[in-house]
Amino acid sequence: MGEFSKGLEGVIAAETEMSFIDGQKGVLEYVGIPIGELATHSTFEETVFLLWNRRLPTSSELESFKGELRKRYALPSGLARRIPEIPTTAQPMHMLRTLISEMSLYDTHPNDNDPEQARRKAMNILGQAPTIVAQFDRCRRGLPVVEPDPSLGFSANFLYMLNGEKPTDAMTRAFDICMITHADHGLNNSTFTARVVISTLSDVYSALTAAVGSLRGPLHGGANEGVMKMLNEIPSVADAEAYVLGKLERKEKIMGFGHRVYKAKDPRAKELMALAKQLADDTGNTDLYEKSHAIERVMEREVAAKGIYPNVDFYSATTYHCIGLKLDLFTPMFALSRIGGWAGHVIEQLSDNRLFRPGAKYVGPHDQPYVPIAQR
Amino acid sequence: MGEFSKGLEGVIAAETEMSFIDGQKGVLEYVGIPIGELATHSTFEETVFLLWNRRLPTSSELESFKGELRKRYALPSGLARRIPEIPTTAQPMHMLRTLISEMSLYDTHPNDNDPEQARRKAMNILGQAPTIVAQFDRCRRGLPVVEPDPSLGFSANFLYMLNGEKPTDAMTRAFDICMITHADHGLNNSTFTARVVISTLSDVYSALTAAVGSLRGPLHGGANEGVMKMLNEIPSVADAEAYVLGKLERKEKIMGFGHRVYKAKDPRAKELMALAKQLADDTGNTDLYEKSHAIERVMEREVAAKGIYPNVDFYSATTYHCIGLKLDLFTPMFALSRIGGWAGHVIEQLSDNRLFRPGAKYVGPHDQPYVPIAQR
Repeated sequence: MGEFSKGLEGVIAAETEMSFIDGQKGVLEYVGIPIGELATHSTFEETVFLLWNRRLPTSSELESFKGELRKRYALPSGLARRIPEIPTTAQPMHMLRTLISEMSLYDTHPNDNDPEQARRKAMNILGQAPTIVAQFDRCRRGLPVVEPDPSLGFSANFLYMLNGEKPTDAMTRAFDICMITHADHGLNNSTFTARVVISTLSDVYSALTAAVGSLRGPLHGGANEGVMKMLNEIPSVADAEAYVLGKLERKEKIMGFGHRVYKAKDPRAKELMALAKQLADDTGNTDLYEKSHAIERVMEREVAAKGIYPNVDFYSATTYHCIGLKLDLFTPMFALSRIGGWAGHVIEQLSDNRLFRPGAKYVGPHDQPYVPIAQR
Repeated sequence: MGEFSKGLEGVIAAETEMSFIDGQKGVLEYVGIPIGELATHSTFEETVFLLWNRRLPTSSELESFKGELRKRYALPSGLARRIPEIPTTAQPMHMLRTLISEMSLYDTHPNDNDPEQARRKAMNILGQAPTIVAQFDRCRRGLPVVEPDPSLGFSANFLYMLNGEKPTDAMTRAFDICMITHADHGLNNSTFTARVVISTLSDVYSALTAAVGSLRGPLHGGANEGVMKMLNEIPSVADAEAYVLGKLERKEKIMGFGHRVYKAKDPRAKELMALAKQLADDTGNTDLYEKSHAIERVMEREVAAKGIYPNVDFYSATTYHCIGLKLDLFTPMFALSRIGGWAGHVIEQLSDNRLFRPGAKYVGPHDQPYVPIAQR
């Protein structure tokens, strides 16, 4: 057995052709294409095709991929009936994890892992998860559900189902860029979870259900809620500096800063920053952006030397808020996007699988007798 | 970054005080007590206390633990109403994964991870999972559900809910020993999954839901079904030798043999072998045991030199069959038991947490341009 590295830091657990990260330089590429290029030119659907096939699609391949996805926006009737029965107090991530798991009960071949079947299941989840989130949110707000519109792309359709009206092009594009930038990121915890689970040759539903559960945690996807809560705690732009300095003095964490992998500014944060500014201006939330930017300036002055920079959560919070999303839907948005990455990693793992079965270092006692209960 | 070890073989991913395995010598201990001692003297409830507290309980502690567990046999009404709605064609492991996830929707504080709350959630799952499995099985058989009996221990209550009549003491004891021997086993894939998921500080429901999904796979808990299928393929004891030799010649896998960790006879198989023989004799299944034993003898002669020995699945299949369990409930039985281990590892991980975030080795292209779609 090798050495024990807590949290597997520094251990290489898989090979991938999907995303490349240079944490020192602040580089993120999907299949070799810089994330900035994709954010500027691509769409979420095309990006998912890229991740699943490790190349960009031709026109006809992209049309076919979009067609397959859009056919799956609608929920099977058993699942659709479930949405209004879910307690309105349920937290969306627990709800989403449960309903992705439940999709398997309506799949006549839930366990098939051959490449075609695995992609079909991945497409089911990618297509249906937005519908689940939007319809649940409508139900808990006491509003009628809005059926998906297969003439719309992934992002426009989601915003339409959520708000009951067609989104503006600017909103759709902003949301799509959030989806593109969150889709894959090496062996983050939830992606690693998905690969570990599929390595028993279980199934795509089991793997992605597990990943949603991982993403929920505040040390992972749950962090974007924390950024918004922090922004809400700061009364105005003028208070941002004192707030940050106070936190630093008390050695408290500033939400949305620092990353295990990046020791430079997260390239996703760079993309989202410009987006957040534009959206904030468009939607009368300029103050929110200005607060964020003020925090970043103080942090840069105080702790950038320690390699602590804004991460992906920092500006995605402002973006999601400006789109009109409620706080507890921030992490589910991360999930909708990351389904693309999770499914790609599951497909990749299945193509050259080996069961994940690490060792544990036993640090307890040995040779203990079973002492009868009367003598304890 | 270190070297890439596929499947994390040889990598130590966590420290534990729960189980110790010596694969060369065929030793398994829970908190230092040999598994044979526990199988002979302990009960499943006491074993779970041992795993969660890393010591055996006093009389009054054990009574209190059993009381807490038995209070939780009954399902919350929202969950109880769900059981008859589940498609009768649903596979039990997909169903169980979904309903453990769903428990979180009826917990008013699903995300609390302090030690007391984490134990409370673990106890909920340990208490309710058997009820879910038994009631689902009754419903799909068209039989009325049997409410749990809190005067009965874990194993007797489960068999009572499943069959609608109180089990014999011999049945109860056999089932309890299966539960004891399957409860924990180092960083097997599902336990590792549970630790990875809780390390984002998500929650006990997310972690155990993920673990059920991992256990489903045929390379993990799903293997015990394969043993039974193999036994059914062999017409009689006299055919066992030819069957095994034929498989070996065609280089096919013999189900229930070999283990990544053990290069000697799995100590759990030793315990279950005697149990399987007794139960098979008691229930008129002597042939089934004899077939298993004949397979083991041929395998010992042919491949023991390569370190291929019976694993835990080999004799648990006969045991579960003799108890009257249908094939697709074998893996859920593994889950009911392993909930004890998973929850113990979650508690242990929370007590000294570090986010699991390994690295990936990127093996794809770099510096790729985004080629406009018309030019692809």
